[in-house]
Amino acid sequence: MIILKIAIDAMGGDNAPDAVIAGVELARDEFKNVEFVLFGDEKKITALLKSKERIIIEHTTEVIDMNDEPVRAVRRKKDSSMVKAALAVKEGKADALFSCGNTGALLAAGLLVVGRVKSVARPGLLSTLPVLDSPTGDGTFNLLDSGANADSKPDQLYQYALLGKYYAENVRGLKNPRIGLLNNGTEPHKGNKVTLEAHQLIAADKTINFIGNIESRDLLKGLCDVVVADGFTGNAVLKSIEGTVSAVMSLLKESIMSSGLSGKMGAMLLKPAFKSIKSKMDQSQYGGAVLLGTKAPVVKAHGASDAKTVYYTIKQIRTMIEGEVVPKFTKYLAENETEEKI
Amino acid sequence: MIILKIAIDAMGGDNAPDAVIAGVELARDEFKNVEFVLFGDEKKITALLKSKERIIIEHTTEVIDMNDEPVRAVRRKKDSSMVKAALAVKEGKADALFSCGNTGALLAAGLLVVGRVKSVARPGLLSTLPVLDSPTGDGTFNLLDSGANADSKPDQLYQYALLGKYYAENVRGLKNPRIGLLNNGTEPHKGNKVTLEAHQLIAADKTINFIGNIESRDLLKGLCDVVVADGFTGNAVLKSIEGTVSAVMSLLKESIMSSGLSGKMGAMLLKPAFKSIKSKMDQSQYGGAVLLGTKAPVVKAHGASDAKTVYYTIKQIRTMIEGEVVPKFTKYLAENETEEKI
Repeated sequence: MIILKIAIDAMGGDNAPDAVIAGVELARDEFKNVEFVLFGDEKKITALLKSKERIIIEHTTEVIDMNDEPVRAVRRKKDSSMVKAALAVKEGKADALFSCGNTGALLAAGLLVVGRVKSVARPGLLSTLPVLDSPTGDGTFNLLDSGANADSKPDQLYQYALLGKYYAENVRGLKNPRIGLLNNGTEPHKGNKVTLEAHQLIAADKTINFIGNIESRDLLKGLCDVVVADGFTGNAVLKSIEGTVSAVMSLLKESIMSSGLSGKMGAMLLKPAFKSIKSKMDQSQYGGAVLLGTKAPVVKAHGASDAKTVYYTIKQIRTMIEGEVVPKFTKYLAENETEEKI
Repeated sequence: MIILKIAIDAMGGDNAPDAVIAGVELARDEFKNVEFVLFGDEKKITALLKSKERIIIEHTTEVIDMNDEPVRAVRRKKDSSMVKAALAVKEGKADALFSCGNTGALLAAGLLVVGRVKSVARPGLLSTLPVLDSPTGDGTFNLLDSGANADSKPDQLYQYALLGKYYAENVRGLKNPRIGLLNNGTEPHKGNKVTLEAHQLIAADKTINFIGNIESRDLLKGLCDVVVADGFTGNAVLKSIEGTVSAVMSLLKESIMSSGLSGKMGAMLLKPAFKSIKSKMDQSQYGGAVLLGTKAPVVKAHGASDAKTVYYTIKQIRTMIEGEVVPKFTKYLAENETEEKI
């Protein structure tokens, strides 16, 4: 049996190390071919662990927190759990990096420590979101780049289309995934300078099942499996979906609270329906955000992750490693020399 | 009494001319100082009108529809209701232009026929959206540019901050409105090339009550009265709010339909609460989208507008003219010569 190794930043996140350890143990008990290298306070970690089976602890003395300036923290906090975990991946001692900590710092650790695949100019962040209706899909779509880069070039968007395709095929198991380009209109002549040119580049690659432009109003409708965006717009759209769901749910709560007895009775009867919406729209169950384009998977789960989210994200990482997503797209990109164009 | 004149494209929109005429008559009956110049099929209009009081009909033979390519339509359909209405504004025969028709064509008619204020490089589209909570505001915020331009420069964003300020002060009656910049992080050092520079420009103008960057996840929270964005991101965020509200509402409906008798009873009891949310999130009640930076107000209401929306939009236009929004910011811009920087 091939043993996969995942480097875990045990100290990152609001509920660390407790939730991280609990999630790791859930995953360890289920995935017998995975070994975990936990970076963090050895005493605390040992006290929390039920069993040390397939678990290695690497003691570290520093923690990068949410208020740290990302690049500076990665450069200065040399003995932090996150940087040490990234170093282990760089040195080939682990196959992937996982953290619930500071997103910016994790992106920096991915780029500066783990390192990018040579032909990928700018790794992008891939997020997974739910769709309402997906007769041909799997109930989700990937948004890429959802925020790793503030400024993007057309060639980078073309690479995201490729990276997203390899992810959807090898992690989600989709055949010929439908790729769309986030744009300000569906017609091919719509767009800004970057999306107009990116549209042409993606359309020209016949290995990509390109369905054309998609508007943000249609994102949740399941029209495609992967949505390519520049990191600035992708980030804006991701956060606006999140903010709008939470706004509508709190409006609903408010309306119910002010609608008297009948409203409250109605709310009680509808509890299961509300719960199912909340769960459907809760992004954490769909795993972590993946930095794609680095030499090994770098995966970030929400800062507020609980043990279950940690477990799901480890499951996702395992599928990424087993599906050989990174080796596959690295090979394709090397053979097709996209770097020249950038 | 000063008589204001509004040029109306009576043939634009899904429900034209019926809904347009009905809305105009509602407004005519309430706003005694407004005169309406209706452009369109004279026969049809006359048949629908209850009274011709303060209504002038200008017969036109063409209509720009939703499938027309905007710039080409404005150039070729010289006798269309929209182009003739725009010409009337250009020639000083009316103070503002109103249409429920093709948005792209109306933007083109605004730029090419009505014309931009000399010092405004690129007029921007201002939309009005609801906020959940606004202890110091009026329950809405303006998003500007929400889609007139696909590519924006920092100076243009600075001008949108000014245009938005004048709009909020003179149309919404807010004192010292809070202006925010849509960005990928709240810290001043966050952003892409355009927003980083725009942040500095806006912050440097002490006449602007700049609250700094705002993330799209916080848009509906009422943190500011005007949100400045580049047109591409503004458009993406606007449409993603729209799409998410509609997705959550249809998820709710679906959950209720599949939750048996108790769910359906609950839904009945909650009908008033659902209705209040739908109405709160319905953008049409907040009036039309305004092209700001043209020599006279150019206002677009939703294609599906009914008489009530037409009425509300006319009310908004009347306040814009009476509040002298365009003359005021034109004067400020001329005195401060921002064009040099662009």
